[in-house]
Amino acid sequence: MLTGDRIAERHRGDASLTGRILPLAVVRPASVAEVADALRICNAHRQAVVPQGGLTGLAGGANPCAGDVAISLERLSGIEEIDAAAGTMTVLAGTPLEVAQRAAEDAGFLLPIDLGARGSCQVGGNLATNAGGIRVIRNGVARDNVLGLEAVLADGTVLSSMNKMIKNNTGYDLRQLFIGSEGTLGIITRAVLRLRPLPAGRLTALCALDSYENVVALLKRAQKELAGLSAYEAMWESYFRFNCVAEGLRLFEATPAFAVIVEEDLQGHEAERERFEAFLGRALEDGVIGDALIAQSQKEVQTFWRIREGHALDRLPLLLNFDVSLPIGEIGRFADECGKALRAKFPEAHVSFFGHVGDSNLHIAFSVPGATEETAHAVDAVVYGLVGIYSGSVSAEHGIGLVKRDFLDRSRSPAELELMRRIKNALDPNGILNPGKVLGSI
Amino acid sequence: MLTGDRIAERHRGDASLTGRILPLAVVRPASVAEVADALRICNAHRQAVVPQGGLTGLAGGANPCAGDVAISLERLSGIEEIDAAAGTMTVLAGTPLEVAQRAAEDAGFLLPIDLGARGSCQVGGNLATNAGGIRVIRNGVARDNVLGLEAVLADGTVLSSMNKMIKNNTGYDLRQLFIGSEGTLGIITRAVLRLRPLPAGRLTALCALDSYENVVALLKRAQKELAGLSAYEAMWESYFRFNCVAEGLRLFEATPAFAVIVEEDLQGHEAERERFEAFLGRALEDGVIGDALIAQSQKEVQTFWRIREGHALDRLPLLLNFDVSLPIGEIGRFADECGKALRAKFPEAHVSFFGHVGDSNLHIAFSVPGATEETAHAVDAVVYGLVGIYSGSVSAEHGIGLVKRDFLDRSRSPAELELMRRIKNALDPNGILNPGKVLGSI
Ligand SMILES: Cc1cc2nc3c(=O)[nH]c(=O)nc-3n(C[C@H](O)[C@H](O)[C@H](O)COP(=O)(O)OP(=O)(O)OC[C@H]3O[C@@H](n4cnc5c(N)ncnc54)[C@H](O)[C@@H]3O)c2cc1C
Ligand SMILES: Cc1cc2nc3c(=O)[nH]c(=O)nc-3n(C[C@H](O)[C@H](O)[C@H](O)COP(=O)(O)OP(=O)(O)OC[C@H]3O[C@@H](n4cnc5c(N)ncnc54)[C@H](O)[C@@H]3O)c2cc1C
Repeated sequence: MLTGDRIAERHRGDASLTGRILPLAVVRPASVAEVADALRICNAHRQAVVPQGGLTGLAGGANPCAGDVAISLERLSGIEEIDAAAGTMTVLAGTPLEVAQRAAEDAGFLLPIDLGARGSCQVGGNLATNAGGIRVIRNGVARDNVLGLEAVLADGTVLSSMNKMIKNNTGYDLRQLFIGSEGTLGIITRAVLRLRPLPAGRLTALCALDSYENVVALLKRAQKELAGLSAYEAMWESYFRFNCVAEGLRLFEATPAFAVIVEEDLQGHEAERERFEAFLGRALEDGVIGDALIAQSQKEVQTFWRIREGHALDRLPLLLNFDVSLPIGEIGRFADECGKALRAKFPEAHVSFFGHVGDSNLHIAFSVPGATEETAHAVDAVVYGLVGIYSGSVSAEHGIGLVKRDFLDRSRSPAELELMRRIKNALDPNGILNPGKVLGSI
Repeated sequence: MLTGDRIAERHRGDASLTGRILPLAVVRPASVAEVADALRICNAHRQAVVPQGGLTGLAGGANPCAGDVAISLERLSGIEEIDAAAGTMTVLAGTPLEVAQRAAEDAGFLLPIDLGARGSCQVGGNLATNAGGIRVIRNGVARDNVLGLEAVLADGTVLSSMNKMIKNNTGYDLRQLFIGSEGTLGIITRAVLRLRPLPAGRLTALCALDSYENVVALLKRAQKELAGLSAYEAMWESYFRFNCVAEGLRLFEATPAFAVIVEEDLQGHEAERERFEAFLGRALEDGVIGDALIAQSQKEVQTFWRIREGHALDRLPLLLNFDVSLPIGEIGRFADECGKALRAKFPEAHVSFFGHVGDSNLHIAFSVPGATEETAHAVDAVVYGLVGIYSGSVSAEHGIGLVKRDFLDRSRSPAELELMRRIKNALDPNGILNPGKVLGSI
């Protein structure tokens, strides 16, 4: 346990950079029993705790509130087993995602959870936030890749459901309670993750399209014809142009209304490249796409993805990022309407759209010179107001934490919020687990 | 509402044929509001209710206990929407599965939930039991195909989470509470199901293997090389021989130690058949399989599946069926040990094994002439005792209901059972929802 000066600055909070307060103490358990001890003691003393994983969260979920004790999982790290027959990895919650990914690869498997923060985020944090990422279209979100889970409840009870089976219908599926609940119902200590076969290769294309209807049409074709479809990333004109200019790239004759990255994981058969080319050829013939580039080298793959990652945006002043989701067919109209509303209110703003369209996930980037806190509130109001109208979600993958707490009711009904509170009370009657996060004070 | 003589015999229970008692009344709501009214009234009067779907369950979950009012979902039926862009179907809970499957197909999609009882079981029952089936290896169990859910709580509150998005991290995932909880936490009224592309065709092979190690080796190869792998069904020698003899078939020169059906869903490309043949060719060369038959006609496909379905077993006296799951690598040893133990105790018994090995799911068929209730108890003790030792699950897909309630503790720890009770109390404080099922009396 660290206190006082020995507490490092980074324990103030996560990558949302909204954390201000140092925790009272940082407890760093190295075993499940130590996590249980820590919680039992805190519960007895009604001491609030905030679980801290890799601190890469974007919703302020790991930020301490005043007086919180942080429980850091960093020492509870390591891979316990890879079961090749079952296709599973048993891992401690504090293991960095990238370490787990490498171990899977060394054993000839793919660990399908993947995201940009892989070097720092932890498996436990990924599960606590039900992380998404860029490969969801093939293997699902974090939740879909968990077979077994162990968590410690507020009172120190160790709840071990370290199941390795795909099918197991023995009573309530308690694992689900802890996945995506951002440390408010228990501290995840171990997990059994599902592994998939390592792909034998990957093909990447960048396509130019003229309408959102065609973005959906190409998606449907890709889902039907590319068995290994592993990414489908759409960029709206404003986003694609901005990033191409910033990178000094000119990939198409004219900037298309939409640019889409299509990737397929391969099985290692001979005809796969031809098949991929034929798929794009047919889409071109049928007018679904206007043009397509197939990456001929790893370098070209990286170029396509560099545009998509859009690091150049980070140089814009006071960049605001949104992570919303909407029914796939509505995303085009939503983006039009949202873009218009924001540009009407902030004529000088940069507003651009991109997203994992196949996962119904849209990101919005907004920046305007001289923005203040009020600007941010006004933009929030526009975006989340529209999300509510479109029956969308105010958080596709980053979670609610503190940052989106006030907008939760745009996506969840009073009956849902009330049931969430009932669950919270049932699992953590003293309210010591990450209080104030997700649901606010109960 | 039906009472007295107007209550049909079938309301005594489900396909486990363990139901003895007629319900006090059968309420047949035709709208969500009527479900809510019924529950509100029952809750106020502390009247226990048993939800009844298609009554095809195999765990006695839909059997009334003495004094229960049955709430039958049969009139709450119909497809509300198919959203082609989102790839979703919105459906009322009482819709027969097959009706929903047909509607999906008519719209050019596959509804991936599928099981033998498709003609009678209902979508709501499938979700309430988290049904599995034969296509799980490709598209997951029922839980994996639910995007949105609506349920009515014990007090009549309508909890609507009719989400259409793949990614949605806004607070606790309440849908999960109702999936697989067998009507003990709420009555499911509507769902948004995920649709997949319709396959362009399917290839089926029957392979002969000499060891369980090779059954696993072939599975791993199939998962890596067949992007559309859609079934992997293993039959142990005793099962395969019995059913081949019963059907008057001789498919291999000698009965192999294991016979496996491998199926792949196709995308409609040209080279797919060659690729499938090459896959089997390599497995043959490498000694993973001893022989393989590729179905050349729909009739041959049906022949392979008829053996697997094993209807001939139904003619055995007092057939006992088990539906357990185990880590994939352990299934071989488990079956050996279980077979030996049963045959030692019952030298004249028919004991055979088959299962969805890729889903860690094993079925056991047992029959012995002159069996009594005590025989059944002794067999249960052997099978579930071993399942406990192997960290397996006493119910892979059929659920707990009444029939497996006494064995739940073989697969779940006291801490898990206690948390299930806490959840049950939080959602249904008066204990009116399907009391006695899954957890026993609380
Ligand atoms: C560059 C970058 C890219 C990103 N890309 C993505 C992306 O593509 N998709 C995506 O979904 N997210 C993304 N994120 C967000 C973030 O990486 C994820 O939310 C990640 O899963 C958080 O893991 P962590 O270990 O850093 O958790 P933390 O930030 O430490 O904590 C996150 C939340 O989980 C709780 N928590 C952490 N560990 C545990 C535990 N063991 N038990 C219980 N509760 C716990 C915390 O209290 C907090 O509420 C990105 C972030 C960055 C900085
Ligand atoms: C021939 C045959 C083959 C089968 N094959 C499989 C298989 O491959 N895989 C598999 O998993 N199962 C299989 N089963 C079991 C059974 O079909 C499934 O469990 C099915 O999902 C049950 O649906 P149902 O509508 O008949 O539910 P019911 O039997 O009516 O009810 C099942 C349980 O769910 C509850 N329930 C029903 N509807 C609702 C609702 N709307 N809200 C809340 N609770 C509800 C009931 O109270 C009960 O506890 C098979 C059964 C048969 C007879």
